[in-house]
Amino acid sequence: MSGYSFPPAGYGYGQQPTAQPYVAPSASYSSSPSEPGADPYNNPFSSLLPSVFPPGTDPNILACFQVADQDRSGFIDDKELQRALSSYNQSFSMRTIHLLMFTFTNTNTRKIGPKEFTSVFHSLQHWRDIFERADRDKSGKIDPNELREALLSEGYSVSPVVLDLLVSKFDKTGGRNKAIEYDNFVECCVTVKGLSEKFKAKDPGYTGSATFTYEAFMLAVLPFLIA
Amino acid sequence: MSGYSFPPAGYGYGQQPTAQPYVAPSASYSSSPSEPGADPYNNPFSSLLPSVFPPGTDPNILACFQVADQDRSGFIDDKELQRALSSYNQSFSMRTIHLLMFTFTNTNTRKIGPKEFTSVFHSLQHWRDIFERADRDKSGKIDPNELREALLSEGYSVSPVVLDLLVSKFDKTGGRNKAIEYDNFVECCVTVKGLSEKFKAKDPGYTGSATFTYEAFMLAVLPFLIA
Repeated sequence: MSGYSFPPAGYGYGQQPTAQPYVAPSASYSSSPSEPGADPYNNPFSSLLPSVFPPGTDPNILACFQVADQDRSGFIDDKELQRALSSYNQSFSMRTIHLLMFTFTNTNTRKIGPKEFTSVFHSLQHWRDIFERADRDKSGKIDPNELREALLSEGYSVSPVVLDLLVSKFDKTGGRNKAIEYDNFVECCVTVKGLSEKFKAKDPGYTGSATFTYEAFMLAVLPFLIA
Repeated sequence: MSGYSFPPAGYGYGQQPTAQPYVAPSASYSSSPSEPGADPYNNPFSSLLPSVFPPGTDPNILACFQVADQDRSGFIDDKELQRALSSYNQSFSMRTIHLLMFTFTNTNTRKIGPKEFTSVFHSLQHWRDIFERADRDKSGKIDPNELREALLSEGYSVSPVVLDLLVSKFDKTGGRNKAIEYDNFVECCVTVKGLSEKFKAKDPGYTGSATFTYEAFMLAVLPFLIA
């Protein structure tokens, strides 16, 4: 069991935004054409309707959503999200965008509503904080040891072998420079977090071993492959 | 267990080239500067030396290798392999190239020698045959049902849900057109074969369930993520 750790209190995100309960619509975002609601009628087509902003959502997020939602559909699609994030911090690959969308919807629909947009916003704020704390020399890149510490601060303890593999995958130079930039750091975090959660779902007792059927294994893993 | 199948006789590749034994050097390829050998001295640095062609290797493969090995290093690197395959059939993404290299070396070194080159050659011949048989209308694309049959002919039985996920990942349009081109078909086959083998390694008795430690799970899965 060396190299394996799910800190009982520290697993996952302390401030995990997806842990917020699904709530009734906030009156503060009313521009959606389809009257987003908390679905009191158990509508079987509810996935076709946008979600809603949690009450008390930061007005900055609402404003960002309205700017990002260029076609005023009430949803943000992958291209809209990529454009919105590029204008906020920097560029993200379409793969990272799809991974983010998958993480917050658990589907391949590639559209997110206000609720998931809020989660993406908070997650990226959180990852930016983690990255900037890890990037001590402010080079815009972190080294493998800083990546290990950043993952550990999120509750993910990875072995040296797994760390090497992550660096070789998420370093833009294929592991030669051993330096991870912010966009790849986000992709790496989303991947480690997502895979760890798939593992944890099959190891609810934190035994360190998880049993999958072939079907469950493929369904757990394939969404993290290239989108 | 519905949707799960490892045909006892049909699992994996009938003509799997990696099943060939590692053999002594063939005299027919002597242009390598570092005198490739079968390592009779148990050299701890043997991974630094190129492998050798199996005896009786098709002279076409030797000729291809010599043309592909542009820097005469005795190895084919990722860019050389991409260039070589582009001139042979069509273009392959760097991701597919890295996946192929990983599959035949089980490392991230991103260099292959004569032995692995021969395996890549045979595999691509084999996948081209499978693809052309599946592509009944010769459109250059196969539909989800043809993909399912092609995978089945290789011994991989995937459920409708897994098939949908594969199509959404390996269709260039993100699943909208539901049509898989040859390069993505190869990527899909390498992925399904590789993940199935990782699963099978943890399910040697074909019970349909595999148990992984967290470390083993991450090491099994991460190599198939974007390179």
